[in-house]
Amino acid sequence: MSSNNKTVRCALSVSSIPDITEAINNAIDNKFTYLICPLVNPRLKREYIADNLRHQQLPLTRSDLDLTAECWQNYVVGAAHQFYDCDSEDETIRNNSICGLSEELNIVAHLNLTNYLVPLRSDKIENFSRIINNILLNKLTMFNVIIRVPLHMNNLDIEIENVISRSNDDAPWYWWKKLRTLCEENTRLGLALEMTNDLPEDENEIERWYSEPIRMIIIPTSLFLTNKSGFPVLSKAHQKFINQFLKLDIDFVIEGANRHPERGMSKYQEYLNYIFKQFQTNSVDKKTQFTKGYEDCLQNPLQPLMDNLESQVYEVFEKDPIKYSQYQKAIAQALIDRVSEEDKKTKEIVIMVVGAGRGPLVKMAIQAAQETERKVKLYAIEKNKNAINTLLNLKNTDWDDRITVIAKDMREWEPTEKADILVSELLGSVGDNELSPECLDGAQRLLKDDGISVPYRYRSFIAPVQSYKVYSEVRRCKEYEHPYEAPYVILLNNHCRIADEQFLFEFTHPNRAKKIDNNRYGKLEFKANFDATLHGFAGYFDSHLYKDVDISITPSTHSPGMFSWFPMFFPLKNPIQVKQNDLITVHFWRCVSSKQVHYEWCVSSPTNSVIHNPNGRTYWIGLH
Amino acid sequence: MSSNNKTVRCALSVSSIPDITEAINNAIDNKFTYLICPLVNPRLKREYIADNLRHQQLPLTRSDLDLTAECWQNYVVGAAHQFYDCDSEDETIRNNSICGLSEELNIVAHLNLTNYLVPLRSDKIENFSRIINNILLNKLTMFNVIIRVPLHMNNLDIEIENVISRSNDDAPWYWWKKLRTLCEENTRLGLALEMTNDLPEDENEIERWYSEPIRMIIIPTSLFLTNKSGFPVLSKAHQKFINQFLKLDIDFVIEGANRHPERGMSKYQEYLNYIFKQFQTNSVDKKTQFTKGYEDCLQNPLQPLMDNLESQVYEVFEKDPIKYSQYQKAIAQALIDRVSEEDKKTKEIVIMVVGAGRGPLVKMAIQAAQETERKVKLYAIEKNKNAINTLLNLKNTDWDDRITVIAKDMREWEPTEKADILVSELLGSVGDNELSPECLDGAQRLLKDDGISVPYRYRSFIAPVQSYKVYSEVRRCKEYEHPYEAPYVILLNNHCRIADEQFLFEFTHPNRAKKIDNNRYGKLEFKANFDATLHGFAGYFDSHLYKDVDISITPSTHSPGMFSWFPMFFPLKNPIQVKQNDLITVHFWRCVSSKQVHYEWCVSSPTNSVIHNPNGRTYWIGLH
Repeated sequence: MSSNNKTVRCALSVSSIPDITEAINNAIDNKFTYLICPLVNPRLKREYIADNLRHQQLPLTRSDLDLTAECWQNYVVGAAHQFYDCDSEDETIRNNSICGLSEELNIVAHLNLTNYLVPLRSDKIENFSRIINNILLNKLTMFNVIIRVPLHMNNLDIEIENVISRSNDDAPWYWWKKLRTLCEENTRLGLALEMTNDLPEDENEIERWYSEPIRMIIIPTSLFLTNKSGFPVLSKAHQKFINQFLKLDIDFVIEGANRHPERGMSKYQEYLNYIFKQFQTNSVDKKTQFTKGYEDCLQNPLQPLMDNLESQVYEVFEKDPIKYSQYQKAIAQALIDRVSEEDKKTKEIVIMVVGAGRGPLVKMAIQAAQETERKVKLYAIEKNKNAINTLLNLKNTDWDDRITVIAKDMREWEPTEKADILVSELLGSVGDNELSPECLDGAQRLLKDDGISVPYRYRSFIAPVQSYKVYSEVRRCKEYEHPYEAPYVILLNNHCRIADEQFLFEFTHPNRAKKIDNNRYGKLEFKANFDATLHGFAGYFDSHLYKDVDISITPSTHSPGMFSWFPMFFPLKNPIQVKQNDLITVHFWRCVSSKQVHYEWCVSSPTNSVIHNPNGRTYWIGLH
Repeated sequence: MSSNNKTVRCALSVSSIPDITEAINNAIDNKFTYLICPLVNPRLKREYIADNLRHQQLPLTRSDLDLTAECWQNYVVGAAHQFYDCDSEDETIRNNSICGLSEELNIVAHLNLTNYLVPLRSDKIENFSRIINNILLNKLTMFNVIIRVPLHMNNLDIEIENVISRSNDDAPWYWWKKLRTLCEENTRLGLALEMTNDLPEDENEIERWYSEPIRMIIIPTSLFLTNKSGFPVLSKAHQKFINQFLKLDIDFVIEGANRHPERGMSKYQEYLNYIFKQFQTNSVDKKTQFTKGYEDCLQNPLQPLMDNLESQVYEVFEKDPIKYSQYQKAIAQALIDRVSEEDKKTKEIVIMVVGAGRGPLVKMAIQAAQETERKVKLYAIEKNKNAINTLLNLKNTDWDDRITVIAKDMREWEPTEKADILVSELLGSVGDNELSPECLDGAQRLLKDDGISVPYRYRSFIAPVQSYKVYSEVRRCKEYEHPYEAPYVILLNNHCRIADEQFLFEFTHPNRAKKIDNNRYGKLEFKANFDATLHGFAGYFDSHLYKDVDISITPSTHSPGMFSWFPMFFPLKNPIQVKQNDLITVHFWRCVSSKQVHYEWCVSSPTNSVIHNPNGRTYWIGLH
C-alpha cells in the first residue's frame, strides 16, 4: 500500500478571525487543508434602503489585499456567518437578508473563492433559492455553493429556531430537495452535512443522503470522545457513519472549540486521517484499482457491430480476474458433460468462439480442454481485422494446428462442420444491449442441433434510482438534443436505489422458436422504500454460462471482484417526486428493426412521464 | 351580417361502405363537408406472427386507386374501426392490436389523409401511446391523430366494456390527460368529444374539456328530437353545450342511422348550420371583429422603450371604443375637481400627455376641456419621431396654439412650467410590464406637488391556467433557448382557469416615497377548483384612471367591449398535475436593474417547479 500516500482533506471552521493570515497559518500548522470562515463581521449592522445597503465610512469587511489571490482561492472557504432570512414574512427582514446575502455573494465572486458555505434552516426558501439560482447561472462566477444542513433536527440551536417558522415536510432533506428542484439540479450546488450526536436511525435515510452531492461532512468538536490515552476519538456509530461516506470524494470540517487543548487542534485532523487510511487499506482490491476515477462518469455505450474495439479496450477487459475463470469453469463442465471419461481419448469436440477479440476465450477453452483432458478443435471467429492480426500471431507462437482463425462476421460465415459448443461474450451492461441476441441468433446456424451455447441465458434487471450527481451530469451533456433520452454506461457511486432491482427481459440460446422475435415489452412495479426523487433507472444483467456457472453485475448477486461491466443508467426527462410506499410503474420496450435496435421507456405511476427515445431518435444500436 | 357566409363544417360518419365514391357523393349531396369511415374491413381476420401480419392473397383494404389523392385528402377522415387493445394482459391480443393499429397508421400516411380518428376507452394505454407518439414524431407523416372519447361514461357500449379492465382515475378526461402527457403534449394530437345523452353536470368539467384541443364534436343521430314540423332538433341542454364550444374552431360529426328517413341526412347538417349561424350573429361585435384570428396566437410583448411603435399598431389601438371614452371621462372629472365653476373662465390648467403617440389622448383632453368648459394648456410629449410628425400635422390642421408638441423622452425633458394633470397610457397586459412605473417615476418631476396622475393606480392579477393549445405552442417556439421562460401576449381562448384570478402587484402615481423601489415580490395561493394540468399562469391588469373611472382586462371586471389588451401568459417548463382543492402556490418577482426589468416565477406547491427566467436570461424589458 506504499502508493497510498494521499491524506484526508480536512478543513478548520472558525467563527471569528482577528487576523486572517495568522488563522490560515495556524490551520496549516495543525495539518488542516484550508480554513472556513465568515467573510463579513456579523456584528456589523446593515440596514436596507431601496436596493442598497447603507454603510458608514466603514469598510464592509477586511481588505482583499490581506491575502494573495492564490491564497484566497486555495486556503479560504467563505461561510455565511449569520442566518439570512430571505423569506421572512417581515418585509424589512426579508429585504435586509436578500441584500446582505447578495453582497456576500459578490465578495465571494470578487475574491474568486472556490466554495461558499450557506446554512439552510427551513423550507421557506423561495427568495433564498432565487438568489442562489441567479448566482449559479451567472457565467462570470465560478464558485460552488455548499448548502449546510444538519443530519438531525436536534442539532438546530434554539436561537435559530426562533427566527424561522416551521412547516409540514419539515426535515432537512426536504429543504434541500426543494432548493435543488427550484435551482433545476444545478451542478454547482453541493451539500455539507453537519454530523449530529443523534444520527438518523433509518438506514434508508442515510442512503438517501448518500445519493446527494455531499462535498463536506462537518464534525463539531463536541462529538469527540476522549480515549484512554487522552486522544480525541469518535464513537463507533459516528465512525460507521463516516465510513459510509468515504467512498464519495468528501472533505471533513472540524468546527468548534478545542476540547483537548493540551494536544492542539491537529489531533482532530490526525484522527480523521487515521480513519481515512484505514478505509483506503480495506477497500483496495483489483476491482477498485481498475475502476478508480470512473465513478459517476457518463460513458456512451459501445456500438460493437458498427465500430471496431480498440486495443486498449480489449486490454482492460482481458484483465478481469473473475469473468474468464468463470468461462473456463463453464467450458470445462460442458466438455465433461459432452464427452464421457471413456470417450475422451477418441472423441473430438468442436468449439467455436464467436467474437473472439484478441483471444481470451480461446485461451480459456484451451485451458478447459487441458484441465479436463478432452480433445478439442477450435475456431476463433472475429470480424475486427485488427484483432485477427493478434489472433494469427497467437496461433503462430502459442497455439497449435487445432485452432483455426476465421476473419468473418459470425452472422455470415459458412463453416464446413458444426460446433458442439458455441462460446461468446457479447453482453453489455443490461445483457442484450450490445445485440448479443441478434448476433447469436445469426450464429446459431454454426451449432449442432444438440449443441451448447455458452452463455445459454442472460437477463436484464432494473432498479429505480435517485442520483442528483448523475442527473445533473446528464442535463449538462451537450452531445444530444435530448440527452435525457440516451442510456449511459456508468459506475454508479453517488446514488441510491429507491427499491430493489427487478427482472426485466430474458434471452436464451440457442433460440429454437419457429420465428425469432427479439422485440420485448416489460412493465415493472416497484414500491418506494422512502420519500425520494426518482431521477432514472439503473440497469444490470446476469448471465448463465453453463448450468449453475454464472456471472452477474446485479447488486444482489454481483460476482465478487468482477469489473468488466458498469451498470447502465436510463434517465428521466424530469425528476419525479415519490413518497414512501408509492408504486413506481415503469414500462420498457426493446424495439428491433432491420437496421437497428433501440429502447423506449416511460413511467406511468405515481405520475406519467413522457415516452423517452421515441423511434430511437436519440439512442439506437446499429445492426450493421 | 352579410359578410358572414361561412357555413358550419359538418362530417358524416359511417361504419361500413360498400363503395367509397358513392359514399362521398352521398355525403356531399347531403351538404356534409367530408366523410369519416373505417379504412380496414373489421371482419378481416388478422393474426400476429412475429412482427408481420399474415394475410392470405387478399388485399388488406380497398385500393388507393378508388379515389384521387386530392379526394382522399379533402373528403376522407380515417377511423380506427375496432377497438385495438394494445395494452391487453394477453400477449397475443396485445401484439395483434399493435400490429393492426400500426398497419392502419401506415395506410393513413400512404393515403396522405389529414386526420385519423382513434377511440380511447381506458387508461391502460402505454403501448397504445407509444405507437401514437412514434407516428406523431415521424417527420415523414403529416396527419393529426384525433382521439375520440365519450363525454359521459354512460356512453360506453357493453361490448367494449367487456374488453377492457377498469382502473382508478377512470373518467375519459384522465385517459386523455395520460395520453397527452406520455406524448409530451404533441400539437398533432386532437380530441373528438362524443356527445352523450347525459352531459357532465359540473360546469367545471365542461370548462376543462374546453381547454383541451377539441377538433370535433360527434353527435349521434339518436340524440336528436323531432320538432312539431317533423325536423330533427337537439334538446336545450345539448344546444347549450354545443354553443359553448362554437368559439373553438370545431367540426361537427353526425353519426348513426337516419332517424328521419323521410327527410334525408341533410336535415341534420342544416340544423347544425342553423345553430352555427345563430351563434355567429349573436357574437359579432366590434371587439370580436378586431380580435378575430388572434385567438391563442403567441405574441412577444412590446418593447416600448427600445423600439418605436409602427403606424399600424397605433391605428389598431386608437380604434378601441371604450378605452378613450374612459380617459375622457376621467380627465373631465379631474378638470371639474381642479377648477371650480366660478374659476372656470379665469383659471388655466396645464395638462401634459406623456407618451402621446399619434394624439388620441390629446384629443380626449381637448374634448374633456370642451365638455367641461375648462381652460387648458396642453403639452404632448413623445419620443417617437414618426409619431411627432403626426402630432405636428394635427397641430397645424386641427389643434390651436394652446397645444405644444415636445419631441423628447418624458424622463429627460426639462419644462418651464409644471403640470396639473399628467396623462399617460403606458400599460401592458399586466399593467407594469411596459415599464409604466419607471417612465412615470421619471416624468413626475413634470407634475405639481398637488398634481394628478391619470392613471393614479394599476394592479396586476394572476390566475392558474390549463391550456394544452397554448402550452404546446410554447413548446414549439424556437425563438428562445428556453421558450417556457418568456411571457407571451395572447388572446386566451382554448383554455380554462383552474381558480379565479388574484391580485399580485400594485403601482401608484405620483410616487412620493423617499426612495422609489419598483422591485416587487408576491406569493399567491390558489385553491384548485378541479383536477387539472397546470400549464402556466394568465396575467391581467386593472387601471384606475381618476377616482372610480377605471379600465380592466381582469376577467371578473373586464371593461365591456375594450379590445386594446390581450392577457399575458407565463408558462411553466413542465406541466404540473393538480388535484381538486390542492393549494397552488406561485411566487412572482419583478426585478429592476439599471438596464432592464424582468420577471421570475416559480411554483412551490403542490410540487416545486424550477425558477423561471433566472437573471432575465430569456425575457427582459429594456429601460433604454
